[in-house]
Amino acid sequence: MKNKTDQTEIKKLRYTGIPTFMRTPYCPDFKDLDIALVGVPFDGGVTLRPGARFGPREIRNMSSFTRAIHHVTGFNPFDACRIGDIGDVPFSDIYHLENSHDEIRRFYEPLFAAEKIALTAGGDHSITYPIFQALQPKQPIGMVHIDAHTDTWDDNNGSKFNHGSPFRRAVEAKLLDPKRTIQIGIRGAQNSDEGWRYSLDNGMRVIFIEEFDRIGVEAVIAEARRVIGDGPAYLSLDVDGLDPIFTPGTGTPEIGGLTTRETLQLLRGLSGLDWISGDVVEVAPAYDPSGNTALVAATLMYEILCLLAERFR
Amino acid sequence: MKNKTDQTEIKKLRYTGIPTFMRTPYCPDFKDLDIALVGVPFDGGVTLRPGARFGPREIRNMSSFTRAIHHVTGFNPFDACRIGDIGDVPFSDIYHLENSHDEIRRFYEPLFAAEKIALTAGGDHSITYPIFQALQPKQPIGMVHIDAHTDTWDDNNGSKFNHGSPFRRAVEAKLLDPKRTIQIGIRGAQNSDEGWRYSLDNGMRVIFIEEFDRIGVEAVIAEARRVIGDGPAYLSLDVDGLDPIFTPGTGTPEIGGLTTRETLQLLRGLSGLDWISGDVVEVAPAYDPSGNTALVAATLMYEILCLLAERFR
Amino acid sequence: MKNKTDQTEIKKLRYTGIPTFMRTPYCPDFKDLDIALVGVPFDGGVTLRPGARFGPREIRNMSSFTRAIHHVTGFNPFDACRIGDIGDVPFSDIYHLENSHDEIRRFYEPLFAAEKIALTAGGDHSITYPIFQALQPKQPIGMVHIDAHTDTWDDNNGSKFNHGSPFRRAVEAKLLDPKRTIQIGIRGAQNSDEGWRYSLDNGMRVIFIEEFDRIGVEAVIAEARRVIGDGPAYLSLDVDGLDPIFTPGTGTPEIGGLTTRETLQLLRGLSGLDWISGDVVEVAPAYDPSGNTALVAATLMYEILCLLAERFR
Amino acid sequence: MKNKTDQTEIKKLRYTGIPTFMRTPYCPDFKDLDIALVGVPFDGGVTLRPGARFGPREIRNMSSFTRAIHHVTGFNPFDACRIGDIGDVPFSDIYHLENSHDEIRRFYEPLFAAEKIALTAGGDHSITYPIFQALQPKQPIGMVHIDAHTDTWDDNNGSKFNHGSPFRRAVEAKLLDPKRTIQIGIRGAQNSDEGWRYSLDNGMRVIFIEEFDRIGVEAVIAEARRVIGDGPAYLSLDVDGLDPIFTPGTGTPEIGGLTTRETLQLLRGLSGLDWISGDVVEVAPAYDPSGNTALVAATLMYEILCLLAERFR
Amino acid sequence: MKNKTDQTEIKKLRYTGIPTFMRTPYCPDFKDLDIALVGVPFDGGVTLRPGARFGPREIRNMSSFTRAIHHVTGFNPFDACRIGDIGDVPFSDIYHLENSHDEIRRFYEPLFAAEKIALTAGGDHSITYPIFQALQPKQPIGMVHIDAHTDTWDDNNGSKFNHGSPFRRAVEAKLLDPKRTIQIGIRGAQNSDEGWRYSLDNGMRVIFIEEFDRIGVEAVIAEARRVIGDGPAYLSLDVDGLDPIFTPGTGTPEIGGLTTRETLQLLRGLSGLDWISGDVVEVAPAYDPSGNTALVAATLMYEILCLLAERFR
Amino acid sequence: MKNKTDQTEIKKLRYTGIPTFMRTPYCPDFKDLDIALVGVPFDGGVTLRPGARFGPREIRNMSSFTRAIHHVTGFNPFDACRIGDIGDVPFSDIYHLENSHDEIRRFYEPLFAAEKIALTAGGDHSITYPIFQALQPKQPIGMVHIDAHTDTWDDNNGSKFNHGSPFRRAVEAKLLDPKRTIQIGIRGAQNSDEGWRYSLDNGMRVIFIEEFDRIGVEAVIAEARRVIGDGPAYLSLDVDGLDPIFTPGTGTPEIGGLTTRETLQLLRGLSGLDWISGDVVEVAPAYDPSGNTALVAATLMYEILCLLAERFR
Repeated sequence: MKNKTDQTEIKKLRYTGIPTFMRTPYCPDFKDLDIALVGVPFDGGVTLRPGARFGPREIRNMSSFTRAIHHVTGFNPFDACRIGDIGDVPFSDIYHLENSHDEIRRFYEPLFAAEKIALTAGGDHSITYPIFQALQPKQPIGMVHIDAHTDTWDDNNGSKFNHGSPFRRAVEAKLLDPKRTIQIGIRGAQNSDEGWRYSLDNGMRVIFIEEFDRIGVEAVIAEARRVIGDGPAYLSLDVDGLDPIFTPGTGTPEIGGLTTRETLQLLRGLSGLDWISGDVVEVAPAYDPSGNTALVAATLMYEILCLLAERFR
Repeated sequence: MKNKTDQTEIKKLRYTGIPTFMRTPYCPDFKDLDIALVGVPFDGGVTLRPGARFGPREIRNMSSFTRAIHHVTGFNPFDACRIGDIGDVPFSDIYHLENSHDEIRRFYEPLFAAEKIALTAGGDHSITYPIFQALQPKQPIGMVHIDAHTDTWDDNNGSKFNHGSPFRRAVEAKLLDPKRTIQIGIRGAQNSDEGWRYSLDNGMRVIFIEEFDRIGVEAVIAEARRVIGDGPAYLSLDVDGLDPIFTPGTGTPEIGGLTTRETLQLLRGLSGLDWISGDVVEVAPAYDPSGNTALVAATLMYEILCLLAERFR
Repeated sequence: MKNKTDQTEIKKLRYTGIPTFMRTPYCPDFKDLDIALVGVPFDGGVTLRPGARFGPREIRNMSSFTRAIHHVTGFNPFDACRIGDIGDVPFSDIYHLENSHDEIRRFYEPLFAAEKIALTAGGDHSITYPIFQALQPKQPIGMVHIDAHTDTWDDNNGSKFNHGSPFRRAVEAKLLDPKRTIQIGIRGAQNSDEGWRYSLDNGMRVIFIEEFDRIGVEAVIAEARRVIGDGPAYLSLDVDGLDPIFTPGTGTPEIGGLTTRETLQLLRGLSGLDWISGDVVEVAPAYDPSGNTALVAATLMYEILCLLAERFR
Repeated sequence: MKNKTDQTEIKKLRYTGIPTFMRTPYCPDFKDLDIALVGVPFDGGVTLRPGARFGPREIRNMSSFTRAIHHVTGFNPFDACRIGDIGDVPFSDIYHLENSHDEIRRFYEPLFAAEKIALTAGGDHSITYPIFQALQPKQPIGMVHIDAHTDTWDDNNGSKFNHGSPFRRAVEAKLLDPKRTIQIGIRGAQNSDEGWRYSLDNGMRVIFIEEFDRIGVEAVIAEARRVIGDGPAYLSLDVDGLDPIFTPGTGTPEIGGLTTRETLQLLRGLSGLDWISGDVVEVAPAYDPSGNTALVAATLMYEILCLLAERFR
Repeated sequence: MKNKTDQTEIKKLRYTGIPTFMRTPYCPDFKDLDIALVGVPFDGGVTLRPGARFGPREIRNMSSFTRAIHHVTGFNPFDACRIGDIGDVPFSDIYHLENSHDEIRRFYEPLFAAEKIALTAGGDHSITYPIFQALQPKQPIGMVHIDAHTDTWDDNNGSKFNHGSPFRRAVEAKLLDPKRTIQIGIRGAQNSDEGWRYSLDNGMRVIFIEEFDRIGVEAVIAEARRVIGDGPAYLSLDVDGLDPIFTPGTGTPEIGGLTTRETLQLLRGLSGLDWISGDVVEVAPAYDPSGNTALVAATLMYEILCLLAERFR
Repeated sequence: MKNKTDQTEIKKLRYTGIPTFMRTPYCPDFKDLDIALVGVPFDGGVTLRPGARFGPREIRNMSSFTRAIHHVTGFNPFDACRIGDIGDVPFSDIYHLENSHDEIRRFYEPLFAAEKIALTAGGDHSITYPIFQALQPKQPIGMVHIDAHTDTWDDNNGSKFNHGSPFRRAVEAKLLDPKRTIQIGIRGAQNSDEGWRYSLDNGMRVIFIEEFDRIGVEAVIAEARRVIGDGPAYLSLDVDGLDPIFTPGTGTPEIGGLTTRETLQLLRGLSGLDWISGDVVEVAPAYDPSGNTALVAATLMYEILCLLAERFR
């Protein structure tokens, strides 16, 4: 019983109550949790449209539309383990990218030190690097990375830590194993090919959307499972990996992306791997008054939550 | 000549004139009609977002964009029979769900007693139950039901007649034959599995979106035709069966649904069955300022109208 | 010290954290509070556009933009007393207006029995009647009522408890003293004059917008203070009292209403009266994607909070 | 009894039914009417943003929010005379401005020949010239003209009949008496001053918004009554006379315009003059998803209707 | 070096600077260009919703999101030739369709006389006919035409040059070779079948969306290449060929259209043909506040630019 | 002749052409200009909602709606002097507030060294400090500052240069004379009163909105003229000084602000003072899909341009 999540609020009418992530209990003190839901309201690393600082707020809001029992598997993650919303990373410096990243890192360090699993709602994609730093993996980890961009560009616009670069930094810091990394949904013209080159030259498996289209979801799943293998892995989902008709509320939209049906199928195909944590990033609600971006993000968070909670089943 | 619909308004510029459904004649007195287009401006049965009371108004508005001759079949339903807009169900009590349902039932009873076919624009899905009551079929009828939800849940939030339950009530009342019922597009987590269980335990053919994806539209059509067979059947289309990118203006959106192309293909595949009436429900325009939801709903109504009008060809 | 509100969250960056009302502590157990902030997510009593069930959610969201120290008075209500968000009224029956009202009444009864002050975010205006019932005043109370409508109509559309009638019911039940009631901002054509007549015939002071325009805010304040006098009074603010350019997100908009500057000046002029509780109602966010309606509502809640908190200064 | 308007639909729930203007009966045959409500879905005369062709459609839609009894005067125009919606001017040529104008003129000629009063919903302001032609007044008429622009410019962008010129043409054709014309709300920079000059040089009384601000509504009313005098007059209201916060859905917005409260007060001050017809023009709904522009337009139409119907009292 | 485009602006932050098409240099004098990017801000030929006159403005705006190097081919069109924005066609008569068309024709004549390639952003589809006239091909040209409508209707609503007719006029004028024309994405009911008939009877290859769905993109590409063959061809893309969820900002939406992924694949499959010019038309931004329509249009313009620039490689 | 601005583009149809500020010539080289229109696409200094980096882009876009001749004064600033758009400040570091400010300062230094007048479109309000640095006034300058906030707060959220602090820094650096500074429109609760205190303690004249309301615009003008006196002065207008119904597209909205009519009257009342430059800041278009914020900003820029150009008359 004590290993379950209190589902009282989840069962109430969905337009009522305080909007925590998926209406889980608000637990700023995470010690009794197995999985912590975290918000990182930060967009200081973007290159185009800011606004992802409001991502956690809006994802919490729309996540009250989600529910408990998965319709394909019948799995209820809230019955399997203790899941709670631990609130947002607080910031005392939002005007210097590296300082903000330090604050993110320091927030996550005790969480990971206590061996909790974190499911994060961003925030722009630059936040994944300080999360990786806090993870302090003994060995570089693997990653399934769904995105329109490889995010392996180098220094530009004044920082080498902006949202186009986290995974290059992570490889350099030996936090991420490029050979156990797969990037899915990549597309869109660029003014330089250095990011694509970096990923490929370092052994990442890059599935551009054209290959995705050609080989189909099942083959992509197989490829992802092959790349990740048995080791620990992180799941990072940038909502711009999907087509902007599904997730217009994002900072760097690229037409021609994944559908929600493909993304759901893909995520479900990743069941059983050694997931250590994950995130959903780049929700910038101002660009989507309809709220659909956040509904998609919240539903995908629920799917990832099911993957993360499997180990407690 | 007298068996045709007056198409004067249909041929005018589409932004002009009084917006009846598909610019058909306004005929509050339905006696000279073969098929009556009806609005049920009611959302007193919803569990999440209200607003479908404005569905008929907005579907009428956008239905002026539709036209007469089907581009695949060349069929013009308005040449085949007399079709008119008979207006909206009037309500004298909107604050007690069962009373409102009684008013719906009483509106449809003389229509069906006169052996008219009704094509209804909702309104929330709870309205289909009183329509079935008014139909008073000699034997339980069959149904093709396109929706994200099975709508076979039991009592909740204070009524067993809300929009999550009409088809459970219809089976109980021997109005609907679960063995001749197929539910297509079902998906999304739930806090209880009782609705899914009820459908399956009572013999309904439930095609979750994952099966739909796997077997494809043609196989689904074949399955629907097998389930429905030769007997009379009703076609009920909840716009949340489609993905919310197509129909964001709805009360209970679930990501990962049908596309319009799949839905159009599916509907056309149902030609030649014994359709006795149908509906398009759950259009809540406030959630879609673009009007696309209503344009989709109006276009799907036109497709269903073609199915209903075939018997007059 | 213990008579202050914990302002930790209030001082954080305004886009971060869990959105309780004005970022006050979440206190489902109200026993340590002086003033309880309450949401009533209910719109089952409307006559036109529903959606106010999402009012509390969205007001909470935008209320994180508000802050502590009043710029005119220098007063900080959070320093004066203990203020907290006690969550939403839960509903087990949303399909029968009177049953829902009973649930509202029962939620407020222990709160008022414990002599707490309630500041409510609606919900449609029908909710004020069960709040009045829960107040169980020894004598009929006074009221300042800002609204486009007198809400003193009788039975219509199936219930005499809908949002056009709460104050007629309250007078009949001897909960409200019409002679100590002033209604401000009334306007808009009607299909019957019975509501206006009822207010006037029973001695309410009705200030139509035209009189408001003619005599000015200061005279209206003087008149309100004269009508209310020394006795206990309730402050009920329907956001449709303001012009729909300020508060488009509402169910029954009437053009030509109060401006925010007039409303702020009016509220501040009501300082020092014996306020026992108050509400801000009829925020239906779906009709205002900009969020301004909720920002106005949240800011007006803060102003009313200052009035309610004065007694603790 | 026969001199009243059937108010059955007006009294129904406002979100139901076919949206005729103010839910009056649809009467394509106008012979039994006193006042005809007409739509002119035409925007072929604009210079900036098109879209007013959808004005009649959307004004009809939002006019179902209006009601019968005026809250200031207690007057019910529908009790005083027979009012009906006669539909839209049909167009067979929308690609040549003058041809479309001819079609407008020919539509109104029999209406005015039968001595009916017309209250028109535009359409862009160029339509008022062919309406004036159809009026065929024995002597030039007077006009109260509310607008941001004098619409007395000469030939530009290829036609001297576009929406910047109708009243220059009307003066030239001896349809409009400039000395009995008052233009209210004029403002905004121009690339030439010829329109302002034409109005002033020909004796029109031009009240720029700055004078309006300075002298106040009551003085403007007095001035309007002085200018119009006892003779027949037309009331033409361009919604861009109001500030674009009230009526953003228009083609040529100019900041700094009239408020709705000022406009309502102004219109009511024009009671008792010899109004022969009127219009509300330049509603382009695409620029206002909120619908407020059309709600304002519909409410102002109701106010003008009260002015027109006074003679039947 | 002089055969390259100056890419200084393209490499800057994408939210900065003056928005020319794809941030290419503004070159009203086109003599040093290989490919001219042109805007035709004209919507005088529409039959339903106007607004495409703002298409060039908004496409320029969103085209600053596009970049230089194609992610599939690695091709950078700006390195291959001199590309610039030559501004918009100026209009002196916007009130008579044929006169406006003459102005378009006269604008393009010197451009084509100088043997420049033009990539045009419309504007409604009627503009393609005067562009064809200016091309003055020695022999009728071929065309790949992506659209929901065949645009081969005859005279209606007062002109035989409106946006439903350009390709019928072009065939009649021996500018377009129907046997080397393929129309892709056609769908939607019509009130007459004459347009479909004209296309088929004159030998155009019409791929309705149903055939597209059935045979798949690769087969469509093969068919397009077969139809076009070796001769010179024009590429005309109406954004309503795509589904309105991708391009809601258009005048005549039809549900059930192409996806962006299909369109991108289709365009890339047309590489190596003898493209002489092209256009993207019918972007009406007022119907899409999100800007996605213009982002899609701009990205597709970039893809077509790559096709046009290939000959300079 | 050479002292005039080329007005060719200004006289064209307003929806055509490349959107420079007010359709003035694009002049990256400012040497032949009297007044330079500058964009500062920067929002790295905000505390709440980012997005003002898109302000210059959208103000340029809507400024094509403005025109040349002032309707009150008849003044045409483009006839009086040479005005041009010099483009945007380029940024090479957007991730460290102080570095970005340095880039702004360095961009303006040569402009002011050449004795040009600058009219700037922001960007968030933090940009005014580096502009002041570039001005390098011999003595501290005066300022009329229209805003909801005094922007004289000290260090917070990690920088003392954010958008709440520019005028405190400017006073400290002896760039701004607090005794010749007037702040108009101040309002809204705060969590600390230090900003208000700083302004008042240092001798700034602070006109809170309540005083503005009480004394009226003419008295505010008189007070502003008294405070500024004869010396050089800067005009800084934050669009959040206006009510958010006029300018919802801003980062830190506060209800109850100035109207456009008041603002226009106020600006015109400042004629004849020694204006050395000015700005309009805090336009964040993402929060206002209607574009009205940018239309207001563009029109106010035109008014300020008239003030700045007076010296060349």
